[in-house]
Amino acid sequence: MTRNNSCLITPQPNALGLTKRVQGIDHLGADITLNVVEERPLTIWLNGQEIVTAMTIGDYSEYLAVGFLSNQGMLAKDETVLSVSFEPELQTIVVRTDKPTNYETKLQKKTQTSGCAVGTLFGDIIETLEGLTLPNSKVSTSWLYSLTKQINQMPSLYLSAGAIHGTVLCKENQPLVYMEDVGRHNAVDKVAGWMRGNQISGADKIMYTTGRLTSEMVIKCALMGIPVLVSRSGFTAWGVELADQVGLTLIGRMRGQRFQCLAGSERLIYDRSFEGEEEDQKHRRKSAQ
Amino acid sequence: MTRNNSCLITPQPNALGLTKRVQGIDHLGADITLNVVEERPLTIWLNGQEIVTAMTIGDYSEYLAVGFLSNQGMLAKDETVLSVSFEPELQTIVVRTDKPTNYETKLQKKTQTSGCAVGTLFGDIIETLEGLTLPNSKVSTSWLYSLTKQINQMPSLYLSAGAIHGTVLCKENQPLVYMEDVGRHNAVDKVAGWMRGNQISGADKIMYTTGRLTSEMVIKCALMGIPVLVSRSGFTAWGVELADQVGLTLIGRMRGQRFQCLAGSERLIYDRSFEGEEEDQKHRRKSAQ
Repeated sequence: MTRNNSCLITPQPNALGLTKRVQGIDHLGADITLNVVEERPLTIWLNGQEIVTAMTIGDYSEYLAVGFLSNQGMLAKDETVLSVSFEPELQTIVVRTDKPTNYETKLQKKTQTSGCAVGTLFGDIIETLEGLTLPNSKVSTSWLYSLTKQINQMPSLYLSAGAIHGTVLCKENQPLVYMEDVGRHNAVDKVAGWMRGNQISGADKIMYTTGRLTSEMVIKCALMGIPVLVSRSGFTAWGVELADQVGLTLIGRMRGQRFQCLAGSERLIYDRSFEGEEEDQKHRRKSAQ
Repeated sequence: MTRNNSCLITPQPNALGLTKRVQGIDHLGADITLNVVEERPLTIWLNGQEIVTAMTIGDYSEYLAVGFLSNQGMLAKDETVLSVSFEPELQTIVVRTDKPTNYETKLQKKTQTSGCAVGTLFGDIIETLEGLTLPNSKVSTSWLYSLTKQINQMPSLYLSAGAIHGTVLCKENQPLVYMEDVGRHNAVDKVAGWMRGNQISGADKIMYTTGRLTSEMVIKCALMGIPVLVSRSGFTAWGVELADQVGLTLIGRMRGQRFQCLAGSERLIYDRSFEGEEEDQKHRRKSAQ
């Protein structure tokens, strides 16, 4: 399995500051020492506007901030990001654009009457999706089998500490960027930030996530222009409806060689037959909930 | 196992509107029909202030709204809730108090300079925790074993549809209120809303959750006054630190008779020995991530 060599960003389970050794006791009353993932608040600002405090493991903060703002529709595709300044001591990151964004104008108007305008913003995102149709990409089952095997076996914080989510941007059977975070949406947003920063199109990509296929996950994937979303976890009804609406192929409960496809199944190519291969115990995910 | 008869609120996996039948295709190319959980936006208002749009399965909206506002510190313990009005068609719920809340005053001041004030609010919650010490309650391992077995086997949306989180308020070895939701925090907030509405103290309770033991989960549990938090899932380092700080007993990776305790282990009573009992395959949770 040499493919991982060409993965551009891989998890760094041994990086300083991402995990901590914690003492405790187990069901036998025996002393244990566990490797536990870190979690820190990061407050994201867009120009002079405080937007959100996210809980994050703390790596790739610049990608997280830019990806979050893009996926929330607060930073449009044509807006120029002038700078992203991370202040580790203040646990703050400021994304600056060349002119006030459309979001700030909207927010300013809205806060005069009712505050945070989350509902309005949410309505706007749903409206954006209405005009969107993703590329009609075919997906081979051989890619899916190869991807899940590579992703499960790649060294990661999940394998060394657990209690963390992962999102992997892939092309055909190749993982390209594998991000992890305590928040499942953060991992997706970091991928989005990487894509925006490197001007990478989503059109020929597959997004793999350990998180559930909820409306929010489908919306993010669609806004990133990625036509295929694969997860180890299950679905919500609205996630499936939105996927149908934008032409996204939605594959869930992908474990070993088993999966369920609830949207876009006409784009699946069964080029590798099911051989009943199961995941080995060691790589089975069960704790990052 | 007749104990569940005295559980006050149990999941209603067959209730109308909580799941939907969805058609799809599996790894063999065979047609499948799955039971999938619903997910709907619910915008929560506090008096004249729009607060958040939560994605929820749609049951117990009143408890969700009141519990969310309480757990966010937006609705203090001494504030009187006059009414909670749910407008299903507008997917909106309004919590009204007898006078403007402290939160609204603070928000109004803050929005004049920088907007949503999420960071400020977050700082306030951390400050509240600094003055808090939970009751020094003992926890028997026999309770833990009994609770996890009852909870795993109780009919639930998780068992019938998957992709959903659960939170159960318990007393000793008795589950009292079992809430489920697509968002793991929503399930906790519904329990908090139920406790507030029924003036139930957390002091002699145990909170069981399927979600990870992150800072946010520990903060909610502490604000609810519950001294014991148990999860099937793992920990974050900050979750453990906060639990230590407020005197919360934190038990994670509770599966079958196995668990890990990373805070408050001196309060554990080993009154039932480990017999190596494992969860049966059918009740193992693995998909609500």
